[in-house]
Amino acid sequence: MPGLPRVVVVGGGFAGLAAVRALAGAPVEVVVVDRHNHHVFQPLLYQVATAGLSPADIAAPIRWILRRQANVRVLLDDVVRVHPAERRLDLAASGALTYDFLVVATGVTHAYFGRDDWAAHAPGLKTLDDAVAIRRRVLVAFEKAEREADPARQRELLTFVVIGGGPTGVEMAGAIAEIARQALADEFDAVAPRTARVLLLEGGPAILPSYVDHLRASARAALTSLGVEVRESTRVTDVGDGLVRAGAETIIAGTIVWAAGVQASPIGRQLGADVDRSGRVQVAADLSVPAHPAIFVVGDLMALTGADGAPVPGVAQAAMQSGRRAAANILARLKGRPTSPFTYRDLGNMATIGRARAVADLGWVRLTGYPAWLAWLFLHLLFLVGFKNKMVVLVQWLVAYVTRQRGVRLITGDDR
Amino acid sequence: MPGLPRVVVVGGGFAGLAAVRALAGAPVEVVVVDRHNHHVFQPLLYQVATAGLSPADIAAPIRWILRRQANVRVLLDDVVRVHPAERRLDLAASGALTYDFLVVATGVTHAYFGRDDWAAHAPGLKTLDDAVAIRRRVLVAFEKAEREADPARQRELLTFVVIGGGPTGVEMAGAIAEIARQALADEFDAVAPRTARVLLLEGGPAILPSYVDHLRASARAALTSLGVEVRESTRVTDVGDGLVRAGAETIIAGTIVWAAGVQASPIGRQLGADVDRSGRVQVAADLSVPAHPAIFVVGDLMALTGADGAPVPGVAQAAMQSGRRAAANILARLKGRPTSPFTYRDLGNMATIGRARAVADLGWVRLTGYPAWLAWLFLHLLFLVGFKNKMVVLVQWLVAYVTRQRGVRLITGDDR
Repeated sequence: MPGLPRVVVVGGGFAGLAAVRALAGAPVEVVVVDRHNHHVFQPLLYQVATAGLSPADIAAPIRWILRRQANVRVLLDDVVRVHPAERRLDLAASGALTYDFLVVATGVTHAYFGRDDWAAHAPGLKTLDDAVAIRRRVLVAFEKAEREADPARQRELLTFVVIGGGPTGVEMAGAIAEIARQALADEFDAVAPRTARVLLLEGGPAILPSYVDHLRASARAALTSLGVEVRESTRVTDVGDGLVRAGAETIIAGTIVWAAGVQASPIGRQLGADVDRSGRVQVAADLSVPAHPAIFVVGDLMALTGADGAPVPGVAQAAMQSGRRAAANILARLKGRPTSPFTYRDLGNMATIGRARAVADLGWVRLTGYPAWLAWLFLHLLFLVGFKNKMVVLVQWLVAYVTRQRGVRLITGDDR
Repeated sequence: MPGLPRVVVVGGGFAGLAAVRALAGAPVEVVVVDRHNHHVFQPLLYQVATAGLSPADIAAPIRWILRRQANVRVLLDDVVRVHPAERRLDLAASGALTYDFLVVATGVTHAYFGRDDWAAHAPGLKTLDDAVAIRRRVLVAFEKAEREADPARQRELLTFVVIGGGPTGVEMAGAIAEIARQALADEFDAVAPRTARVLLLEGGPAILPSYVDHLRASARAALTSLGVEVRESTRVTDVGDGLVRAGAETIIAGTIVWAAGVQASPIGRQLGADVDRSGRVQVAADLSVPAHPAIFVVGDLMALTGADGAPVPGVAQAAMQSGRRAAANILARLKGRPTSPFTYRDLGNMATIGRARAVADLGWVRLTGYPAWLAWLFLHLLFLVGFKNKMVVLVQWLVAYVTRQRGVRLITGDDR
């Protein structure tokens, strides 16, 4: 499409895809660059990490998602460098790519508060490969315990620590407890998986900090009834090989999962803009970069304070809304019209805790227990990309509900 | 279960699992050792390699399969060494394990005719990890071609060579051609996936050598109509990085898949028995090892000539039947009765070639085309382990049939 203005969108997550779709039919050439060939439905990533779903069930190829949008080209590539003054990207495999507008939607990854050496011992959960690696660690812990003759060591191997009490940490801890108490309960001889300890450590005063009090209490009760030890105001001071220190206490654990801090994609620092402590890009109200108005930053990578004075949270809804706003502002610019500020509309939060329990705050209604869980199921199926994925996930959930099994208990990859 | 005779079964494939199940309720202690935690339904492995199914759809945890069998213990471990004279195994993680009877069902892996350096360039297909690696290579080839500016190099990247014209090679070649001509056909801009070349090279005079002539002709016609170039009597003389030599011809190919020779598991050489050229163990008629009658070898690892003078083939049916025979003979020995010779009952062969086509020889009936494909679908679903897997595979096949899509087009793992 020579002659048309080129919009390059980096990142095929919720924010990037929303921007691309909002440009459908517009007189622009869109190029999507992602280092993965697939979009991941992040809210269900913890179910892949806990053997409930297969990677493909929550992902879809970006090309396939955009197959009917004529003005889009998709490149599987890595961004090496952004040159804002020249309106150019350097890509690892494809070389230079110029743009008229750039939408940066590369998100965040896990951060270890400057202690990158913790990463090897406490993997985080951002990609499908991360999820499969955590699944392997969780399942291998039970196998190692089964082979172990020393009861004290068995108990250590069956100790699971989840660090970080946000939605991902809460959902991970609940799912690990369910694996131990239900799915694996009767399949071992030398150990009793039911005796596994699952600890959820939260540095702040309370888990699920963005939730209202009574939902938080309900989540805490649900976790406790599954056997999860919830420790709030427990700041982790060191992580080692099979070891977590929190103040004076040392916990020996076979498996440690990191669900705490995040840091922004390094591309954020190449845009000629101010970044916050996590590396997120300070954007103008219309989501553009003040010094380079051809660049828009959307999704988890943007740092923006809403009209209500609260920062826009790093959640899927904010990502999608900001992607659409950036696309609309690009089209406004092309027509010589003024851009509009981004206003975040909070559609609510939900987290599920094991089988048939959840907490949901939809603004106009707050749910706990079974109704919250049904709402969670329905909305997650609704927003999952692809008919095949919806059907397959529904089948897996139905079978899991009836049998209390986890359908994807595979140990794959080399790290035995 | 102290005091009961211990039967150790090494390998949780078709043969090993059949032996274990045939020992259900018997007065023996059964220990299953496998290096993987899951059983794989090998006949559908090529569908994982070609993005049609997820790994978990064709696999099930060995513990879960055997969860209702009280006399079984499962160990995730590697056999380091067998000591037939002492009736003992050394396991990598669990140490020594003694046995009264040993059933060795460790199967075969791919072999490169002594050219192990070919392995890096032409991966084979025996495990789920192999399948995911091949899937990645196939999908990455199209992505690389899309980024490539040179048309000659694009054409090389979109050349796929499958070496070996047995059922796996035939099914792989057909599925790769379908990916190019249907699933990916309209999703690229710089290249036309439809123009991909898929070559199937068979060293012998004909593909599917164990099939009767008219079924072979039907398979050849189905492959050709999908655009696969079938080359028989084409012996590969060298394999390099993106390169296959067959006599005077050199084929430059982005992706090479190995579906040719097999070699036996190295455990076969530790049993004090004669082995054939591929390392398979020469067993007595009752499947025991002549010098060590406490050891039985079953499945693909055994070398045995049937009553009809033909070697027992390395197929799933022979594996299951031999596993059951070995178990029955162990029980006979325990009761002081004579063992019985193994007789292989050939229940037929089938292979599928793309959408809605197959060849099937069930002995009493020979099918081609749509009826063969329906028979293939039905029997594969029937024998797949686990209700969840049957349901999920059925859904994926239905969606694939209607949409002509492949549901698992994920590029995961590091090798970009």
